[in-house]
Amino acid sequence: MSLNSFGHLFRVATWGESHGPALGATVDGCPPGVAIDADTLQHWLDLRKPGQNKYTTQRREADEVEILSGVFEGRTTGTPVQLMIRNTDQRSKDYGDIAEKFRPGHADITYWQKYGIRDYRGGGRSSARETAARVAAGGLARAALDHLAPGVEIKGYMTQMGPHGIDRDRFDWDQIDQNPFWTPDAKAAEDWSAYLDELRKSGNSVGAIIEVVARGVPAGLGAPIYGKLDTDLASAMMSINAVKGVEIGEGMNAACLTGEDNADEIFMGNDGQPVYSSNHAGGILGGISTGQDIVVRFAVKPTSSILRPRQTITKSGTATEIVTKGRHDPCVGIRAVPVGEAMMACVILDHLLLHRGQIGDAGGKIG
Amino acid sequence: MSLNSFGHLFRVATWGESHGPALGATVDGCPPGVAIDADTLQHWLDLRKPGQNKYTTQRREADEVEILSGVFEGRTTGTPVQLMIRNTDQRSKDYGDIAEKFRPGHADITYWQKYGIRDYRGGGRSSARETAARVAAGGLARAALDHLAPGVEIKGYMTQMGPHGIDRDRFDWDQIDQNPFWTPDAKAAEDWSAYLDELRKSGNSVGAIIEVVARGVPAGLGAPIYGKLDTDLASAMMSINAVKGVEIGEGMNAACLTGEDNADEIFMGNDGQPVYSSNHAGGILGGISTGQDIVVRFAVKPTSSILRPRQTITKSGTATEIVTKGRHDPCVGIRAVPVGEAMMACVILDHLLLHRGQIGDAGGKIG
Amino acid sequence: MSLNSFGHLFRVATWGESHGPALGATVDGCPPGVAIDADTLQHWLDLRKPGQNKYTTQRREADEVEILSGVFEGRTTGTPVQLMIRNTDQRSKDYGDIAEKFRPGHADITYWQKYGIRDYRGGGRSSARETAARVAAGGLARAALDHLAPGVEIKGYMTQMGPHGIDRDRFDWDQIDQNPFWTPDAKAAEDWSAYLDELRKSGNSVGAIIEVVARGVPAGLGAPIYGKLDTDLASAMMSINAVKGVEIGEGMNAACLTGEDNADEIFMGNDGQPVYSSNHAGGILGGISTGQDIVVRFAVKPTSSILRPRQTITKSGTATEIVTKGRHDPCVGIRAVPVGEAMMACVILDHLLLHRGQIGDAGGKIG
Amino acid sequence: MSLNSFGHLFRVATWGESHGPALGATVDGCPPGVAIDADTLQHWLDLRKPGQNKYTTQRREADEVEILSGVFEGRTTGTPVQLMIRNTDQRSKDYGDIAEKFRPGHADITYWQKYGIRDYRGGGRSSARETAARVAAGGLARAALDHLAPGVEIKGYMTQMGPHGIDRDRFDWDQIDQNPFWTPDAKAAEDWSAYLDELRKSGNSVGAIIEVVARGVPAGLGAPIYGKLDTDLASAMMSINAVKGVEIGEGMNAACLTGEDNADEIFMGNDGQPVYSSNHAGGILGGISTGQDIVVRFAVKPTSSILRPRQTITKSGTATEIVTKGRHDPCVGIRAVPVGEAMMACVILDHLLLHRGQIGDAGGKIG
Repeated sequence: MSLNSFGHLFRVATWGESHGPALGATVDGCPPGVAIDADTLQHWLDLRKPGQNKYTTQRREADEVEILSGVFEGRTTGTPVQLMIRNTDQRSKDYGDIAEKFRPGHADITYWQKYGIRDYRGGGRSSARETAARVAAGGLARAALDHLAPGVEIKGYMTQMGPHGIDRDRFDWDQIDQNPFWTPDAKAAEDWSAYLDELRKSGNSVGAIIEVVARGVPAGLGAPIYGKLDTDLASAMMSINAVKGVEIGEGMNAACLTGEDNADEIFMGNDGQPVYSSNHAGGILGGISTGQDIVVRFAVKPTSSILRPRQTITKSGTATEIVTKGRHDPCVGIRAVPVGEAMMACVILDHLLLHRGQIGDAGGKIG
Repeated sequence: MSLNSFGHLFRVATWGESHGPALGATVDGCPPGVAIDADTLQHWLDLRKPGQNKYTTQRREADEVEILSGVFEGRTTGTPVQLMIRNTDQRSKDYGDIAEKFRPGHADITYWQKYGIRDYRGGGRSSARETAARVAAGGLARAALDHLAPGVEIKGYMTQMGPHGIDRDRFDWDQIDQNPFWTPDAKAAEDWSAYLDELRKSGNSVGAIIEVVARGVPAGLGAPIYGKLDTDLASAMMSINAVKGVEIGEGMNAACLTGEDNADEIFMGNDGQPVYSSNHAGGILGGISTGQDIVVRFAVKPTSSILRPRQTITKSGTATEIVTKGRHDPCVGIRAVPVGEAMMACVILDHLLLHRGQIGDAGGKIG
Repeated sequence: MSLNSFGHLFRVATWGESHGPALGATVDGCPPGVAIDADTLQHWLDLRKPGQNKYTTQRREADEVEILSGVFEGRTTGTPVQLMIRNTDQRSKDYGDIAEKFRPGHADITYWQKYGIRDYRGGGRSSARETAARVAAGGLARAALDHLAPGVEIKGYMTQMGPHGIDRDRFDWDQIDQNPFWTPDAKAAEDWSAYLDELRKSGNSVGAIIEVVARGVPAGLGAPIYGKLDTDLASAMMSINAVKGVEIGEGMNAACLTGEDNADEIFMGNDGQPVYSSNHAGGILGGISTGQDIVVRFAVKPTSSILRPRQTITKSGTATEIVTKGRHDPCVGIRAVPVGEAMMACVILDHLLLHRGQIGDAGGKIG
Repeated sequence: MSLNSFGHLFRVATWGESHGPALGATVDGCPPGVAIDADTLQHWLDLRKPGQNKYTTQRREADEVEILSGVFEGRTTGTPVQLMIRNTDQRSKDYGDIAEKFRPGHADITYWQKYGIRDYRGGGRSSARETAARVAAGGLARAALDHLAPGVEIKGYMTQMGPHGIDRDRFDWDQIDQNPFWTPDAKAAEDWSAYLDELRKSGNSVGAIIEVVARGVPAGLGAPIYGKLDTDLASAMMSINAVKGVEIGEGMNAACLTGEDNADEIFMGNDGQPVYSSNHAGGILGGISTGQDIVVRFAVKPTSSILRPRQTITKSGTATEIVTKGRHDPCVGIRAVPVGEAMMACVILDHLLLHRGQIGDAGGKIG
């Protein structure tokens, strides 16, 4: 029971602190024979990498990943894959202040209360820097999915920033990679740009909602009752720093609907597979995939490290004020997009393997 | 890796189908010396029991729980506790129709696609009847909490039914046990009563939002990164039938806030413990409890089994219409309240034990 | 992490005490579609059942197993299978004495020191009665093996009782079921019968060695490094009451051999599969099955509950003498034979599923 | 469920191949506040390090360990500790031959059959080089034990090499560190030296038996039924390369004893703690520690890579002869001594934490 890992058969354990020498992911249970190299993983890491535009932290990290084990002559061997990323741009002096003061909204105080010792530099283990390891592991999961279930596509994008949501009528897949917010709504990207600029200058930060979709996932994945696909996705997304809510399909809004409205009616498609009139379920019924798009949404709270003064206390219990300097994301939700994709990839692959092990080809056909 | 169980040290495995001879929970890791008997558990089961008013299914189940192991002379022994509930009111003929037809919004189709065989009677394993076992286990968790951490209180209530939310200004703890909806807003209870009556008569159903609060939980519980308290709560609540969204504290709304607004400022309280200006965090920072109220919310979709005709297909792929007779809850969210409480109790206890094992008394003091 | 369960994908959790109302096994992860009924399981339980001859305890238990979940119309559904056995012949008065006194060699003292409370009746949870649940689960594992890998055969037998071993030259498979000791050596059976008779009359007991063989297991099963097939078998056998040693193939004797002598040389067989000149490895190399017979041996210590007076202390620390009356096995190793078989069946099935999940059909061919 | 890791709360995952860039251990669940640095770990690694005398492989590895995470200002923080060792003396050309040929007694053939791909260089993942990571983790476990349970001592030594056992009458603790075989019998060390010299020159190898003792372990550790202390020790030792048998206390010999002889009678000691007349049980009853010495023994088979020609086949199924050149241990059991100690340290610490979590101070007192 490693509490720094997730997954059943495809198991990802992360390790490392924000300002330690390195961080990484130990991936156990990756199937053998998957073609992978550092360049492929680097592609995904570069998407999450800080310092790429003015909307993310100005910390400069190459985030170069090394594969230390589990790969031989360009293919996985079925043994643990160690993915290591060296930290190179630690400016620990930026963080001197927080050795003594607890930042409101941050894990400073709870890590202290729990462990009685904490690596305060850059938030230590509680830093969003840990998510680089997830993205590396997610890159490997994607490669394994391509190997075992070609056709599965995973895509994340931002649907809300602060009070400003996207307009679903302007949803355009091709737009997602064209703006720094990974939003499918070009108009929203423009508006957010102005909004976030101002917010950043004022030393403030803001929250966001990310949606991640997996297409082409076969029906039948998910292990009820406590390893349901939605259960594992909820857990995976909630484990990302700053996430405060997770939704599947209709999400919290399901509370507002009647049974009649919420029912995704079933028909036979032209290819002899069931099709549905709608996807309120987000592609999951009873914890098992239906074959429709799997749709997960999560809310990221605003970055807690801000330049606006806030009341707090020191370790000795003295009242004080804190202004967090250093290099921070005004909207940490932006860089959560590739992280959410990585988690989706890991969970889908994991359930593919689990289904193969538990069920094999015993699943039911329709028609 | 049992996929029908949850928890780290306090581990609950459930078993059983809606119309099989019995169902139950095997609880492993309950500390020794906890005073418990069947009557105490029955108290909690009676809250969830069907057929108690016109707003829940008319299936009559005594839901009598037997303790088959792990208890000696009224106290737990530290060995597995088997809690069994016999099914007594199975009317399997009610379900003949769904042997062939898939109910939209229900797990019928996915269980078939996954397993190639399914116990269709009453939804089999995917029935909400499984949650009786959770409530029994939750009763044991509460007793263990009373033993190890007296002062922890757990309370759930409904905050929304369909489009109708509660008014937080009318929030009254004492009201919760006074109405069939477990809502703290007396006026809402009245309105919902009329609303649900009509809905039920029309053969329709509706969703709901449940909030569960844990008070008096010590600071320091939660095991980052992947066994965070919020991660485990998200997983626990999402595993409940029909749940489509889970929120901690501010939840999805965190996306709308700025860092300045979202910060729960920290002060020293009169008793030398930190106090907070607000609780946007829902009592959890970095996955670890702060000592504030832990606040979780989840949305339950409307019951899928309705009397309104919906389009679907049969196992052979033939288009058909379905009207689900039988005895169903017009708002299954109502009976989800004690289930949410049970899950909260299990998760809190589990993390109390985990913290004791991993950290002991090494946690940090303030002041 | 249930500590009362074992297995990765085929996971068996047992519960229950010697003199409680019932005991059982919750089996999670059994593949769907396996034909099973109570009669099939009963066959295996009857082999372990006490009171069948003068060499085992005279406690009379029908050991009737009920299937409470996970089976529908004679086939498993992929959901947890609950197997329950009611206790019917508890004579708790026999055990009054051991409420206060610790039997030397028994778990009385350590359960007390660990838990601070113990169900002393018949040894409570530490009684060999728990193994009935394993045999029931093993029966299900055998049925699943027949379904997924027809041709796997599992057979246990006794090779030593006290100082008297079998003569391998007299080894006869057909003899195993012909004597109360499940030994393949008819002459040994005769000798042991006389030896044990005398021992029993003198109020003493004796240890034994059991060997369990699995034939027809495909090459490639086992998950290095810490889920190796031999690692899991060692763990499975050591978990059986009174077991003090486990060997694979050559076992402890491997220490005496040279590399030249120990090498199982490899040739191609007529059917295009590798064959070996010998089986010092016991069918396992690097934790993975070779396709040869898997050979495990374990030693069972003599029953600790004996009629010969021994020095001990009471709970209050007073020196005393103890003579354990009640109904005990003079050689508990006899009834360990079906238990060892059951553990082997569970482990093999588990690794078959695990291999299917992790590797699928990516394994290598020779030739 | 990582299959490359072991432990419940103190969880050790190893990764890396014999001739890859590095190998290491990710240790999750180490308690916070433990004083540790690389030098302390290096002390233990140096004991296992190859190339130190003529009785071990001549491969030269500095085995320098780097701590990459989880330690801050010389103390553990409660987050994962990554321990990395770079490989520096890979002479992969030595292994060209085994890319195609399977060495009898080695995992070459089964890794191929399982995975369909293998890193054959130096045995890849199946190499005993993996045990360096265990020793590093064991060093951390020892430091944590010193922190939490000062007084626990763990010591391993060799008791048999080939046909030559030690004489228990010459047992001398102080002798253990004085000879290259870590044997407590000075005379045996002399004899083995001559014996092994000759064997090595003849290109042969030999097996060994290692005994590991833990002193000062408190009574009450161990989690029945399937997380028993002996069950976990059996699993831990069997997972070490080339181990074919594991014994607790009397071990396989328990089969030869009567109940009367095997009983460790109980008395009250002068310090008010129970004492025993003997230790046939090896310090464990019912899977729980008694407070006596915990005694584990395991047999290591002879190194399979030998210079004596053996018959085998190639990947294409062609019959051939193999002579394994390269640098190999004539008695790999020698270097298994520190590995066995490391596994013991990890298991004891793990159960100490587990007991603290599950039981706290609820254990029973005597007297």
